Amino acid sequence: MKSVRENAKELMKGYCKVCPVCNGKACVGEVPGMGGLGTAASFKNNVKALEDLKLNMRTIHEFSEPDTSVNIMGLKLDIPVLAAPIGGVEFNMGGRISEQDYISSKLKGCAAKGIIGCTGDGVPDFIHESGNSAIKECNGHGIPFIKPWEEDELHIKLKKAEETGCKIIGMDIDAAGLITLKKMGRPVTPKCIRKLRGIIESVNADFILKGIMTPDEARMAIDAGVKGIVVSNHGGRVLDSCPGTAEVLLDISRAVAGQCSVLVDGGVRTGLDVLKMLALGADAVMIGRPFSIATIGGLQEGVEKYIDQLKGELTQAMVLTGTEKASFVDIRILFR
Amino acid sequence: MKSVRENAKELMKGYCKVCPVCNGKACVGEVPGMGGLGTAASFKNNVKALEDLKLNMRTIHEFSEPDTSVNIMGLKLDIPVLAAPIGGVEFNMGGRISEQDYISSKLKGCAAKGIIGCTGDGVPDFIHESGNSAIKECNGHGIPFIKPWEEDELHIKLKKAEETGCKIIGMDIDAAGLITLKKMGRPVTPKCIRKLRGIIESVNADFILKGIMTPDEARMAIDAGVKGIVVSNHGGRVLDSCPGTAEVLLDISRAVAGQCSVLVDGGVRTGLDVLKMLALGADAVMIGRPFSIATIGGLQEGVEKYIDQLKGELTQAMVLTGTEKASFVDIRILFR
Amino acid sequence: MKSVRENAKELMKGYCKVCPVCNGKACVGEVPGMGGLGTAASFKNNVKALEDLKLNMRTIHEFSEPDTSVNIMGLKLDIPVLAAPIGGVEFNMGGRISEQDYISSKLKGCAAKGIIGCTGDGVPDFIHESGNSAIKECNGHGIPFIKPWEEDELHIKLKKAEETGCKIIGMDIDAAGLITLKKMGRPVTPKCIRKLRGIIESVNADFILKGIMTPDEARMAIDAGVKGIVVSNHGGRVLDSCPGTAEVLLDISRAVAGQCSVLVDGGVRTGLDVLKMLALGADAVMIGRPFSIATIGGLQEGVEKYIDQLKGELTQAMVLTGTEKASFVDIRILFR
Amino acid sequence: MKSVRENAKELMKGYCKVCPVCNGKACVGEVPGMGGLGTAASFKNNVKALEDLKLNMRTIHEFSEPDTSVNIMGLKLDIPVLAAPIGGVEFNMGGRISEQDYISSKLKGCAAKGIIGCTGDGVPDFIHESGNSAIKECNGHGIPFIKPWEEDELHIKLKKAEETGCKIIGMDIDAAGLITLKKMGRPVTPKCIRKLRGIIESVNADFILKGIMTPDEARMAIDAGVKGIVVSNHGGRVLDSCPGTAEVLLDISRAVAGQCSVLVDGGVRTGLDVLKMLALGADAVMIGRPFSIATIGGLQEGVEKYIDQLKGELTQAMVLTGTEKASFVDIRILFR
Repeated sequence: MKSVRENAKELMKGYCKVCPVCNGKACVGEVPGMGGLGTAASFKNNVKALEDLKLNMRTIHEFSEPDTSVNIMGLKLDIPVLAAPIGGVEFNMGGRISEQDYISSKLKGCAAKGIIGCTGDGVPDFIHESGNSAIKECNGHGIPFIKPWEEDELHIKLKKAEETGCKIIGMDIDAAGLITLKKMGRPVTPKCIRKLRGIIESVNADFILKGIMTPDEARMAIDAGVKGIVVSNHGGRVLDSCPGTAEVLLDISRAVAGQCSVLVDGGVRTGLDVLKMLALGADAVMIGRPFSIATIGGLQEGVEKYIDQLKGELTQAMVLTGTEKASFVDIRILFR
Repeated sequence: MKSVRENAKELMKGYCKVCPVCNGKACVGEVPGMGGLGTAASFKNNVKALEDLKLNMRTIHEFSEPDTSVNIMGLKLDIPVLAAPIGGVEFNMGGRISEQDYISSKLKGCAAKGIIGCTGDGVPDFIHESGNSAIKECNGHGIPFIKPWEEDELHIKLKKAEETGCKIIGMDIDAAGLITLKKMGRPVTPKCIRKLRGIIESVNADFILKGIMTPDEARMAIDAGVKGIVVSNHGGRVLDSCPGTAEVLLDISRAVAGQCSVLVDGGVRTGLDVLKMLALGADAVMIGRPFSIATIGGLQEGVEKYIDQLKGELTQAMVLTGTEKASFVDIRILFR
Repeated sequence: MKSVRENAKELMKGYCKVCPVCNGKACVGEVPGMGGLGTAASFKNNVKALEDLKLNMRTIHEFSEPDTSVNIMGLKLDIPVLAAPIGGVEFNMGGRISEQDYISSKLKGCAAKGIIGCTGDGVPDFIHESGNSAIKECNGHGIPFIKPWEEDELHIKLKKAEETGCKIIGMDIDAAGLITLKKMGRPVTPKCIRKLRGIIESVNADFILKGIMTPDEARMAIDAGVKGIVVSNHGGRVLDSCPGTAEVLLDISRAVAGQCSVLVDGGVRTGLDVLKMLALGADAVMIGRPFSIATIGGLQEGVEKYIDQLKGELTQAMVLTGTEKASFVDIRILFR
Repeated sequence: MKSVRENAKELMKGYCKVCPVCNGKACVGEVPGMGGLGTAASFKNNVKALEDLKLNMRTIHEFSEPDTSVNIMGLKLDIPVLAAPIGGVEFNMGGRISEQDYISSKLKGCAAKGIIGCTGDGVPDFIHESGNSAIKECNGHGIPFIKPWEEDELHIKLKKAEETGCKIIGMDIDAAGLITLKKMGRPVTPKCIRKLRGIIESVNADFILKGIMTPDEARMAIDAGVKGIVVSNHGGRVLDSCPGTAEVLLDISRAVAGQCSVLVDGGVRTGLDVLKMLALGADAVMIGRPFSIATIGGLQEGVEKYIDQLKGELTQAMVLTGTEKASFVDIRILFR
């Protein structure tokens, strides 16, 4: 991983400093770029909320070979991790590799290591087209995320997403705040529950809604027919001053009470972070920036190495907290 | 705004560093100047109290075109923002533009963008005279603030303020602590409720009292006959160690319970900050230093650009918190 | 005060940096010297405990000319401040002025401004002898503090202290931890209540006990016959990890319930700090390092200027919190 | 101690900076080396948890010559301190002295000053063999710690440990997370209570289990037959994000309720830290990195000087908190 990261540092110069800990401090306000919006408080809160969680170490038990795999929404994942949807290599990451190489490498690396990657959406259209191509290359093993466009654009994009052969389609509804898109004449908007239900019913795939930060909207998402939600503040890139996702996750997963899958992103960097999110009720996590860095720095091989590292860290953390299965993590591994 | 800020940085050299976030850290103790008194704790607490508030992001709704306008004290404002009364260009801001240009530009920019600006008071007299002229230039669309002088000086100044044609007159009663004025032979003093009632009754305009930091004084202000109060610690320039205004606002707005308008200043920098103050019960906010910087850096145009920026930020924040109208903001947009 | 401080900075080079805020950070562990012991946590906690207290600003009242004076232990003080006992100019402060000039200037400056100074004790003997001379020069207007020596040394020193004509004698019992003195063959020790009562009865003056940090020891001091206590952790110079005195003061002053005078030192720098301590129940405060700096930097004139500054700050803070008399400060001037 | 530390700084260059306060900040992630794993949060939390504890100073009492000695597990210790088991001079400390010189000097220094040292284990085998030799040189006055190996390796090592003539043998069960050892083909694993009981019964010495961080595992250790536990997160070297040991100690010592001896390590640097741990219910503490530094920097003499320093600091802290005996420390010496 060291050479992957050094390579990324070189290639992303001016866009990402590939800091020792990716915490939003060196890239405050860099949107476009890899930073958080405004004061980057939402980004920083994501990282801090995870840092603030402490673990109870336990070693009087017999789980020396824990099972890291999970089944979620019909997917069997070797570790409970998905590569989050991030696109826009050119304006966010420096553009030293192509959008297509970027997203194909990422999805293939995920597939090779028994997990799954998501693809992003945006303007220009090749972001979402590259994603669709990559999913097809992987025989449908990928999750396309579509932004909350207005009527026509939305339905055309959803249709194209279905054609990739994917089993799950997602929408990052929190992108509704991206005023930049509106200025480009491509408005994204909030959706009321009725409209959301119509969209979900029209899609020929399971549906994930990304951008849930409150228990009430989690329940609304379930009412609208989602199979899964992603607790997310969009990596701190749409609204400043959000709490960290690890601050809101427990209340949301309790409100959901098993009625849909609960994913979460925001500040997850290591296998230890993954375990903390599972303890708070997530079924799996999404990881964003670190996967982008691994992809830029090492293409498919970089992605695979990062997944190996995550699995090693998660395994060690499970052994030292007495956790037998990633599919059932006791909240009491958290201190207090 | 970028060139406005760069210009201001040049013109205010030695008086204000025009920091990325205006938080009182680089100008500790610089009174006169743009800083906070003493350790600048009151200034810093203002900013920190706002930073500490987190927002619940919500996007499952239909408010994609929120209404930012409010009606307050007979004024229709396009956004719930007033330019706070700050004068003394020469000794506080470097003196590279004249007091008259400064205050006229500010009031005109506000008027052009559908809001209203306030004018300051002090020694020498041209501060308050420039303000009065500017209000007349705007056909009375401005709010003159008078310091709590002793008898004669006070009544003469109030009379001159009335003559500007303004509808509302304010007093920043917290200026009572400005020992410098006393040393110049121009004492400012606290006023008991009886004296305050006499002053308010004598004034032929609606009256706002600025400098309320406790629920008990808010109730006293209402008893004395004010139409509005401004929760304010004078930007941290009269008493060190005050709490941030966002720390005391909720208790005060609850105590007021609709009996007068509640304004607040202190650390408001962005549209997001405006929304937080509204969630705590303010009807509108005043913004001080950023308006001075915008005025110095770009005159009327700078002021207008800053107001545009605030409106954009406020709109985006309203969309992403599911807030339909600035005139009714649900406290539940605040996290916890 | 500016030139006094600059002068002190020059004369105390290597011993004290005369920092903008004297908070113990630049002189960690410098004992001898002006710092706090070990990690200097006790020193820093003193300053931080005061910083953490916030004030309720109030200006709807009529107290524009507050009364700063107090009567305490038979003394009428123009402001509720005493210069704390600190000696050892040579090894603590750089030795650029003599011990005698130092302590005489300090006591005279205090007397000239209507307050009173204390003198210190230690090894070598000229510390305590200079103090005694200075008190005599002031016709007994000074308070000698004696360390808790073993039998003979203690009684000889108390006797000499009485001979200065002073009305009050103090003991800094917390000096019991100074192992350096023990190594010099001059042991200082804790005293049980019985022994303390014997000492106090033997002294022909009112007795103050300095170094009380808990309510139980405050009550024991009263039982032993003191007229006053000083809540103090010895400026953080004997035991690391003590709470700040402002953290313990309220509980102690409530436990004392008027049965003796309550003084406090630790981190008091400004008139605002004085007012905060009074709000927590102190009858007056002692100030240490700032008086040493003022004395080194400006001799009697420096001391007088510092007292003037304190009075100005205290007056302004009283006006802005609605405090009429320093002899009765309402705890509700503190926020929360 | 100053020259010992300077010498260590030179000899450990690249491995340890011998910081003024050893707090884990300068060596984040340096494993191997002297740092904490990952973000070093566990290491830093150890130090911070102790720093956060404040002490009640008390000097109205008669304990000027406190008794620092304790009896624990059949050992009479002059101060309640053990040198913790740390080995691997070559890869952790720079390798400028030999493993044998290192561990022999440490044990002899401890013995000379009336306390006892522990020896470590690991790969390569000479770590544990040097430890055994050193204990024999001290006629059995040392405590060998064995890692939680799988069956054969474990029993062979325990047998060799017994042959040193030691009275107590320990196991650092938290080493179960050291994946590096597994990769070397020498797996260490958690042990269930049944297996642990078997191990303890097979050993011909009293047994200490090191690495307890929760009350439930403390009770399990007692059920398995230990004579003592060590509350420890392995100096933050096996699991990131653990609480500081001083955060969990009180709950654990209350759960143990005198059924076994309670030791603790983690962040203890000074005699003051020792006293804080005793107040939280420890019978004695282990100190790790500072003993390694003292050993590298001054061999047996360095160790002895460090113990003298600890005794001086502990004595002074006991005098100033009114603590008569280290074998009974009142929790009320802690503030709040």
